[in-house]
Amino acid sequence: MKTRQRILVTSLNLFNHFGEPNVTTVDIANEMEISPGNLYYHYRNKHDIVNELFDRFEGCMQEVLDASELQLLDLEDSWLFLQVIFENIWNYRFIYRDLNNILSKDKLLRKRFNRVTDRKYLTAKAFLDAYTAHELIRVSDQELQDLLDNVVLTTTYWINFASIRRDHIDEDAIRDAVYQVMQLVYPYLDQEHRRLLRTIGSTIANTRS
Amino acid sequence: MKTRQRILVTSLNLFNHFGEPNVTTVDIANEMEISPGNLYYHYRNKHDIVNELFDRFEGCMQEVLDASELQLLDLEDSWLFLQVIFENIWNYRFIYRDLNNILSKDKLLRKRFNRVTDRKYLTAKAFLDAYTAHELIRVSDQELQDLLDNVVLTTTYWINFASIRRDHIDEDAIRDAVYQVMQLVYPYLDQEHRRLLRTIGSTIANTRS
Repeated sequence: MKTRQRILVTSLNLFNHFGEPNVTTVDIANEMEISPGNLYYHYRNKHDIVNELFDRFEGCMQEVLDASELQLLDLEDSWLFLQVIFENIWNYRFIYRDLNNILSKDKLLRKRFNRVTDRKYLTAKAFLDAYTAHELIRVSDQELQDLLDNVVLTTTYWINFASIRRDHIDEDAIRDAVYQVMQLVYPYLDQEHRRLLRTIGSTIANTRS
Repeated sequence: MKTRQRILVTSLNLFNHFGEPNVTTVDIANEMEISPGNLYYHYRNKHDIVNELFDRFEGCMQEVLDASELQLLDLEDSWLFLQVIFENIWNYRFIYRDLNNILSKDKLLRKRFNRVTDRKYLTAKAFLDAYTAHELIRVSDQELQDLLDNVVLTTTYWINFASIRRDHIDEDAIRDAVYQVMQLVYPYLDQEHRRLLRTIGSTIANTRS
């Protein structure tokens, strides 16, 4: 692996593990056993590294969110789709861990993060519109808007919340995050689809544990 | 006001405005026009200041959460109760802004924050149990648990979320936060109480704006 690439991989691991504010460029260089000077040759400062990691996060999210048209409508597919979204968030969880702080330092990054969030809204809306069209759920425009706000909020913060509530957090948090988002849609489903959603939830829980 | 008290008030303002990781003890001393030495005479370091502010936050939250028994049952009272909770969170929003980071540095603080969160769960459960007993809502044990998770998550993160989504955030965010939490309960209400909740929401929105 080239040094530039190794810097990114090492930084991502350290940021995810310790939180971005607690990792310096010197920590990254030490972990890689290179000199800080060598690191600065590739990246002027930590901000440049964060920016490049954000590029990758944004690219991954866009790719998943754009592919969503294929998978609308089926509750099980929605579940699996959400799982891929949360896998991306998990891989770049340092962004979400210190979200307000990271975005407060860079207006452009804030704008870009909000663009990803807008895209989350649109995709969630496409799913819920398809459910509505096929009468899985019945919601007014206002109910839909409020539901979307809660879906996007939960998508943004569930993994943070889990990491505070639990002594140890691992990728199982992804499954729980998906469950919790689907739980927001659940009360709007009819009895038949509520049952179906519960079955999907317990099947996936059992295959994974 | 005594210097010790002034240090706390100034720190709280600066933390809330700029975020705790972006404020140093020197910034606090400068803002107060005292010497850093004078500040260190009262507080050894920033951590001690954060700790004492957390004491106050914890005290306020406990006081509100303990008073909740009086106000169960009525949807309008629930609304007003949530408003007081969110006013406290607003006053100490720096804790929530960098929650994972602040708690990662102090295991005891993390334990104490989780105790406040446990208390939020208990209080939310008391409300929902009262609704259930009086047939405002009908939920299974599992549905109740999932609803509680989402209520506590939204209480924890709504103000952060709003501050990222909006260019400017002020105390109006409190009203929206309450609305969003009540929206989680909404789909479990019968038609009559859904209508009532919508009326409360729009009345309060109009009185305040």
